[in-house]
This record gives sequence, C-alpha cells and structure tokens, in this order.
Amino acid sequence: MKSYRNELWFCTAGRREFVNITPKVEDAVRKSGVKEGLCLVNAMHITASVFINDDESGLHADFEEWLERLAPFSRDGYRHNRTGEDNGDAHLKRSVMGREVVVAVSDGRLDFGPWEQIFYGEFDGRRRKRVLIKIIGE
Amino acid sequence: MKSYRNELWFCTAGRREFVNITPKVEDAVRKSGVKEGLCLVNAMHITASVFINDDESGLHADFEEWLERLAPFSRDGYRHNRTGEDNGDAHLKRSVMGREVVVAVSDGRLDFGPWEQIFYGEFDGRRRKRVLIKIIGE
Amino acid sequence: MKSYRNELWFCTAGRREFVNITPKVEDAVRKSGVKEGLCLVNAMHITASVFINDDESGLHADFEEWLERLAPFSRDGYRHNRTGEDNGDAHLKRSVMGREVVVAVSDGRLDFGPWEQIFYGEFDGRRRKRVLIKIIGE
Repeated sequence: MKSYRNELWFCTAGRREFVNITPKVEDAVRKSGVKEGLCLVNAMHITASVFINDDESGLHADFEEWLERLAPFSRDGYRHNRTGEDNGDAHLKRSVMGREVVVAVSDGRLDFGPWEQIFYGEFDGRRRKRVLIKIIGE
Repeated sequence: MKSYRNELWFCTAGRREFVNITPKVEDAVRKSGVKEGLCLVNAMHITASVFINDDESGLHADFEEWLERLAPFSRDGYRHNRTGEDNGDAHLKRSVMGREVVVAVSDGRLDFGPWEQIFYGEFDGRRRKRVLIKIIGE
Repeated sequence: MKSYRNELWFCTAGRREFVNITPKVEDAVRKSGVKEGLCLVNAMHITASVFINDDESGLHADFEEWLERLAPFSRDGYRHNRTGEDNGDAHLKRSVMGREVVVAVSDGRLDFGPWEQIFYGEFDGRRRKRVLIKIIGE
C-alpha cells in the first residue's frame, strides 16, 4: 500500500471565499503514484469546509446568501462569541457545507462526474489556514 | 490491496426521489472480494446525494418537505438559474443531504447498525445520472 | 494492509448530548498499529451524528439552539412520528451534522488541525447506541 500526504495553505483576502482546489488535488494524486485508492481532502480548521459542487459564480453567490440566511453573522447572537471570537456563524456554516470529501482514485486520476470540482470554503478568513490531502492505495 | 469500481445509473421519473440502493452496494461488496476495507458511495452529479438513513416513507416525506423549506424551488430566486438551469435549489438541497457516504466493510459485508440503509437522493431528476461505488481493502 | 474495528457504546442521560470521543478514537488508532491510513468513525444509528468541531461549551449550546430552529422537535409535526416514534426531528438534525468523519492517520496518529475534536452527537438519547471505528492502512 502507498500513502501520500500534503497540505495546502490559504490566507483569503475576504472573510468568506470559495477557492477551486481541484488542480492542486489532481497534482497530489499524480505525485502520490496511487493508481487505485481513496483521496481524503479535509479542512484542518473548524470554520472552513471542503466540498464538491459546480464552479459557477452565480451558484457560489447563491450559497453565500443561503448560508447567511441559515446561520447569519452576528457578533452578539452566539454564545461562542463570548470567548472573544466573532465567528460563531462560521462554525455553523461549515457544518452545513461539510468538513471533508472522499474521492475515488481510479487509473491514477480523480474519479469524477462531469461537473464535480473540489472547493475550499472559507467562512472566517484573513488568517493562515490549511487543508489536508491524504491518499492511500496502490 | 484489492480495489473494485462500479457505477449505478438512474433516470428517475420524478424531479425528486429517494431510491434505496443498499442491495446494489451489497452486491458490489460481494463482487469486490474485499473482506476488510472501506466502501465509498458517491453521487457523480452535483444536484444529487448519497446518504444513509431509515427506509420509512413518512420520514422520506418529512425530508422532502423540510428540504423544500430550507432551500425552496424557485425559477427566479437563484442566480444560478440565470445560466438557463432551474435547479439552483437542487444544489443547495444536495449540500444539506451530502454527496457521499463511506461505509466500513467487515467480514465481507457492509458493517451497518440496525436501521442503516443507503439512499440515492435525486433533486433534479428525469435525466440519466450516476453513482460511483469504490471499494478498497483486502 | 492492516485493518482494525472497534465499537463505542453510549447511553446518554439526556435526549440530546455532545460527547467528545477523540481520546477513544486515538486509543483505537494506537491499538490498530496503523501508521499511515484512514480512520472512519460513524454513528451506527440514524438519529445520531459523528462530527468534528471545537470543544467549547458555548458553541455546543449554539449548535443545540440552531438545530432546534432548523428542525424543531414536534410530536405531531412529522409524518415519521405516526409510526409511534417521536424522533422525526432527530433524523433531520443528524442530517445537518452528518453521519461520519474520515480522518487521516499519519505517523501513527490522528492527523488533525489545532482545534479539531471528534464528537458523538446524540439527538434521541436515553437508549443504548453505538459508534463504529474502522481503520485501514499499514
């Protein structure tokens, strides 16, 4: 069995941002030498997500608006913010979008449907944060 | 290490539908010959889900109604629909229900609790769409 | 390839509860002898979750309140409850928080960011319920 590990680093300019990381994950799969296996991609921070969806800017604006409706930013509205943070909403938003994806590796490539793209979803940015890529297989 | 890959195809009659795919995944586990490992089952399309829950029709009606409340169908209410689609809501619904499940394979079988069943969740049907099954282990 | 399987049992005093299971999962990783691999941790019941977030009591109270808003407890409000259950809301809450996490194992340890902790999320407690840990790798 082979295994491969890599980290991606981010420091987004805005508080919230979606970054297409598919090319970087594909690159990791190539470097891993794994032909058949599984590729885990997860946010290493609890106010960020890794998710799979369409790379379409209108959809991303819809996500942004929808998440704001489900879990609005509020400095005073969350008990968590009494710790001195103001990111209570970001913990909830990340819970909707998910921490991680697991993608099949087949024939040395990400085994994707036609529109699947992997995104880093930042909900409390302007800080250095990481994504972990772990690939196992052979 | 063994690996096994299979696709399931769907073309649901309705726009939204939940299909129990547990027997098909069990069949894939048998064919894989894997006794101990992990089984990934994921929607290959970004307006569909794979999730685990109870096979109870009342619960499925509750899911349907609840998802419609969280992310209602609306032809004009999503920026994504300006691309000519009308499935903006389906992208959001799928985000709530999830893209994938990872299930343990133990002693050659899906390692499930008493009520766990795997469902394909379609939110923009009447099109040919796919689910990927990938099993690794030995 | 090595594989390891273990179950954790719970019977929470309250209907809803979040239990930090990180030490028990770390213990399983040690016992597995796996140095590089993947660790799946999943609820075996469909009204419970396994998720990763911060171990901060204010945040947990925020989660509780938020989930109650998204999917309120209601004896008569869910078709599922006509089966004699009163846990329709718990199925929905678990869908938001997720069934499972997959965590990388690197150098014999859970490969975590600074604040990541694994929780069992109970939404219909006071019953004996289980979590499955499955680790593969080498």
